[in-house]
Amino acid sequence: MRDKLEKRIRVSAKKELADLVITNAKIVNVFTGEIMTGDVAIADDTIAGIGSYKGKSMVDAKGKYLIPGLIDGHVHIESSMLTPQEFAKILLLHGVTTVITDPHEIANVAGADGIQYMLDKSENLPLDIRVMLPSCVPAVPEDSNGATLYAKDLEAFYSHERVLGLAEVMDFPSVYETNLNMIDKLVLTKKNNRLIDGHAAGIEREKLNVYSAAEIRNDHEATTLQEAKDRLDLGMYLMIREGTVAKDLKALLPAVTTRNSRRCLLVTDDKLVDDLIEEGSVDHSVRIAIEQGLDPIIAIQMVTINAAECFRLESIGAVSPGYQADFLLVDNLEELTIHSVFKKGECVVEDGKLLEEKLIEHSYLATNLPPINCAKVTLDDLKLPLASDLCHIIEIIPNSIVTNEVIEKVEVENGNFKSSLKKDQLKLVVAERHRETGNVGKAIVKGFGFKNGAIATTISHDSHNIVAVGTSDEDILLAINELQNINGGIVVVSEGLVVATLPLPIAGLISDQDYLTLYEQLKSLNQKVKILQGNDTFNPFLTLSFLSLTVIPTLKLTDKGLFDFHSFTYKDVAVTK
Amino acid sequence: MRDKLEKRIRVSAKKELADLVITNAKIVNVFTGEIMTGDVAIADDTIAGIGSYKGKSMVDAKGKYLIPGLIDGHVHIESSMLTPQEFAKILLLHGVTTVITDPHEIANVAGADGIQYMLDKSENLPLDIRVMLPSCVPAVPEDSNGATLYAKDLEAFYSHERVLGLAEVMDFPSVYETNLNMIDKLVLTKKNNRLIDGHAAGIEREKLNVYSAAEIRNDHEATTLQEAKDRLDLGMYLMIREGTVAKDLKALLPAVTTRNSRRCLLVTDDKLVDDLIEEGSVDHSVRIAIEQGLDPIIAIQMVTINAAECFRLESIGAVSPGYQADFLLVDNLEELTIHSVFKKGECVVEDGKLLEEKLIEHSYLATNLPPINCAKVTLDDLKLPLASDLCHIIEIIPNSIVTNEVIEKVEVENGNFKSSLKKDQLKLVVAERHRETGNVGKAIVKGFGFKNGAIATTISHDSHNIVAVGTSDEDILLAINELQNINGGIVVVSEGLVVATLPLPIAGLISDQDYLTLYEQLKSLNQKVKILQGNDTFNPFLTLSFLSLTVIPTLKLTDKGLFDFHSFTYKDVAVTK
Repeated sequence: MRDKLEKRIRVSAKKELADLVITNAKIVNVFTGEIMTGDVAIADDTIAGIGSYKGKSMVDAKGKYLIPGLIDGHVHIESSMLTPQEFAKILLLHGVTTVITDPHEIANVAGADGIQYMLDKSENLPLDIRVMLPSCVPAVPEDSNGATLYAKDLEAFYSHERVLGLAEVMDFPSVYETNLNMIDKLVLTKKNNRLIDGHAAGIEREKLNVYSAAEIRNDHEATTLQEAKDRLDLGMYLMIREGTVAKDLKALLPAVTTRNSRRCLLVTDDKLVDDLIEEGSVDHSVRIAIEQGLDPIIAIQMVTINAAECFRLESIGAVSPGYQADFLLVDNLEELTIHSVFKKGECVVEDGKLLEEKLIEHSYLATNLPPINCAKVTLDDLKLPLASDLCHIIEIIPNSIVTNEVIEKVEVENGNFKSSLKKDQLKLVVAERHRETGNVGKAIVKGFGFKNGAIATTISHDSHNIVAVGTSDEDILLAINELQNINGGIVVVSEGLVVATLPLPIAGLISDQDYLTLYEQLKSLNQKVKILQGNDTFNPFLTLSFLSLTVIPTLKLTDKGLFDFHSFTYKDVAVTK
Repeated sequence: MRDKLEKRIRVSAKKELADLVITNAKIVNVFTGEIMTGDVAIADDTIAGIGSYKGKSMVDAKGKYLIPGLIDGHVHIESSMLTPQEFAKILLLHGVTTVITDPHEIANVAGADGIQYMLDKSENLPLDIRVMLPSCVPAVPEDSNGATLYAKDLEAFYSHERVLGLAEVMDFPSVYETNLNMIDKLVLTKKNNRLIDGHAAGIEREKLNVYSAAEIRNDHEATTLQEAKDRLDLGMYLMIREGTVAKDLKALLPAVTTRNSRRCLLVTDDKLVDDLIEEGSVDHSVRIAIEQGLDPIIAIQMVTINAAECFRLESIGAVSPGYQADFLLVDNLEELTIHSVFKKGECVVEDGKLLEEKLIEHSYLATNLPPINCAKVTLDDLKLPLASDLCHIIEIIPNSIVTNEVIEKVEVENGNFKSSLKKDQLKLVVAERHRETGNVGKAIVKGFGFKNGAIATTISHDSHNIVAVGTSDEDILLAINELQNINGGIVVVSEGLVVATLPLPIAGLISDQDYLTLYEQLKSLNQKVKILQGNDTFNPFLTLSFLSLTVIPTLKLTDKGLFDFHSFTYKDVAVTK
């Protein structure tokens, strides 16, 4: 520390040549909100001065804009289906140099081993991956997931330098009821002087006080202007989410004003590999925000200094002396076309190309993680007996993780539900896959529009049991069995044949392939699923993977049955008088 | 912590009555920049909710504005001449509930014992006094002060919960030259994950990089718009100072914009007891800023949330659930008339009156602090021999701590300088008072305009030696001797008679009286000094007390002689070819 400080001072005082100097850049100053000129001098991994400097290496920015490295304040890396190393490669190409991640998905499968896996695989990457510790594993006590994490299981992780706090507290009732285990985690976090992330889906203003009172300081679940305003009013950072499924940016942008923007961030939460490659990470959010009319510098502040302040990351988020030399050169502030990316003073992306040698080897060895452990499922297990033909049906809202509840008459055959292609009423199945309990939940879903076949996946937020939807029990069963054969992943079945598989052998969530290979596999999967002739206005695999998420409104299915978010209880599929 | 959290959650959830609820208030929300309505519910010392609440105690704000307790981000308590307890009483009356102080003055007299005295005397006060550790004791190595503090002397203080970091680094050359002792202190502070305050008087932009590179993150010495802009550009928080002598607010306010205001604070730095009583602390700055046209909410943010963020004080600076219940009720946002003040949920000021019983007893016992230790001064010691009648003269800039240098012909008698009332050329004397060295520095000062007599004080930034100015050596000598008799303070002499004294027995800086008694003593002193018929457009005692401050431009006097700020060297009073 001492040597670096002395060198940095000598460089700033022009007594020693800088290691690197960027000239002719228009510097975006996130402190003043203005464009600044001057040479940016770097000593080791830190900016030493902005003014008139000479360096051992000089880079002419040719009038490009120099902006701080972008920060995604809330992302689940597992949702990309990539290992941290492969995830890092894509994000760097998109100018993201720091992410705050919650290994909530892998923890729900593998517990503390899952958290440790993500920490180990994110060591020494040119992408700075900071970790929030999963607060709700399982998401709610009712869930049948792979592990249960108590405060005592999290405690040791607070000694890790990249652990920033407790991740999205989503089990509102456990806080509201001052549940022992939840309070343990909140107290542990504050005793370690760390932060607590929120997840206040559907929580109205008066109740939101409970989260703020518990020092839960941010939320990324606002979907309406009123919810956004309530969160800002009660002192929470507003994280505006734009992911693969949940796209809240256009709806929430009007809530951002010059007065409150310092309290606003842009985050992705869950984004799939193809979207990351094709449109990017939070850089995509910035582009949309600007296109929607937000001041470009305010948009950039939301993914740099605001995020750094929200997470108390004091040496990043700005291009200023004493700050880590994480920055991008972009051609203009409208398209935000990323030309090059520097991390800790090293160029990791040049002319939009990744400098591979700067990245450590791709390694996915995950022998400490458990395999799929699902009891044998039979056709009988898939039967859904109905006491009435009037049923509670899960209705998909395209490109949303929220569902509607509708009540409709359905076809009944020998007392069991029968899928109807005409009414688009298909069978939804969730099979427990962690402890071989043999639990199989069944319900009716509307919106996929499949005309044949079935799809199934081991990605099923947050318990990650096997979830399948199909037009016939036979195809559903085949899909579930194939998932067991490939030790987790995604499967497409049509008329008795497996037509596509995407193996995700790491906890049934993450691929063992590099990002380009996975990208090709996924494109092929998306191509093959067209055989099912479903509604192509949304991604059926992703939508399917959120139909078990009980912390999100309205009607969901778990391995134990149909779950009502508002009453937080299970209920019959058939409407009972 | 656990019990308080659980209770706070129950109160926020309306399962338990709040301890206190404020109703009918217009709440200033520093996060959104808007006025909010709702009941403010308090549990113990913390806000539990804002909405619709009932409490054991209900206070009707009758439509008043409710704003967060004010924060002064940079103040030297010693400059008020009050003990921390007495200082606290006045600040609470003015709505200030937290200050960040630098016990730099008392440390320059008594070293670590001085810091410990201020920490001890600020325990358990309703004013939250946070401490930055003096970084430059002495201010510059050349100074003859009472103690020298090295990193090893500061280290133990970092374990104190109210110590936030290293105070105003003012010795620019020692940073620029990577001086061993200075680097020790910077490294020690960062190793303890604490903050470093700046003091960059007169440092131009290119050199300012050196401070920023060293992670010195704020400055309160900007006096011009360009300096203000430079500090903001290079990532420093801009602390706009409005004190008793240094008044920079009106000049710097135009630098504050809606884009950069989050990086701006209002501070007092040095303010005397009478000004604190009559106009207030940073509340006075807020009034001026608003009167000058600044948006009232932006002005309030500068002394609440901005200061809290600058110093990483996460539970204060806002009226929001989970934040400490420090707030004020004011009649309107223009005059900011303070009606009542709440600290940690307790009312400490009601109807503008201090609730005395909330304050601990005034106690000033300071036996561990050294007495005045000045060698006997004689008339011979006061002689100022001149090699030429053309001299470098210190010219006072009224109400500024900066001086001008002028060159003028002076009267010479038997080879020695002779004061001239006509030309307003008076003798300035600095006598070392810590180690009995017998050092006596002499120079010529212009601007006091005294027609007779002399004044002397042991308050003399930053070394706090005895500084005196007068029309005759006899009166100067009498004043110096009287200071020794009263063990420090301020003295006024006229025609051979001591006409007024203000004893400051605590390190020669602080009174042992309560604030009202000291206020009366000071008024009498200011009355009596009129006998000297000086320039009454500024306070002569305060101006005198800054004439030894070598870290401020331009020409100063120490016990070793005339000091030139720009060359950072001593020089002869007489102009030498």
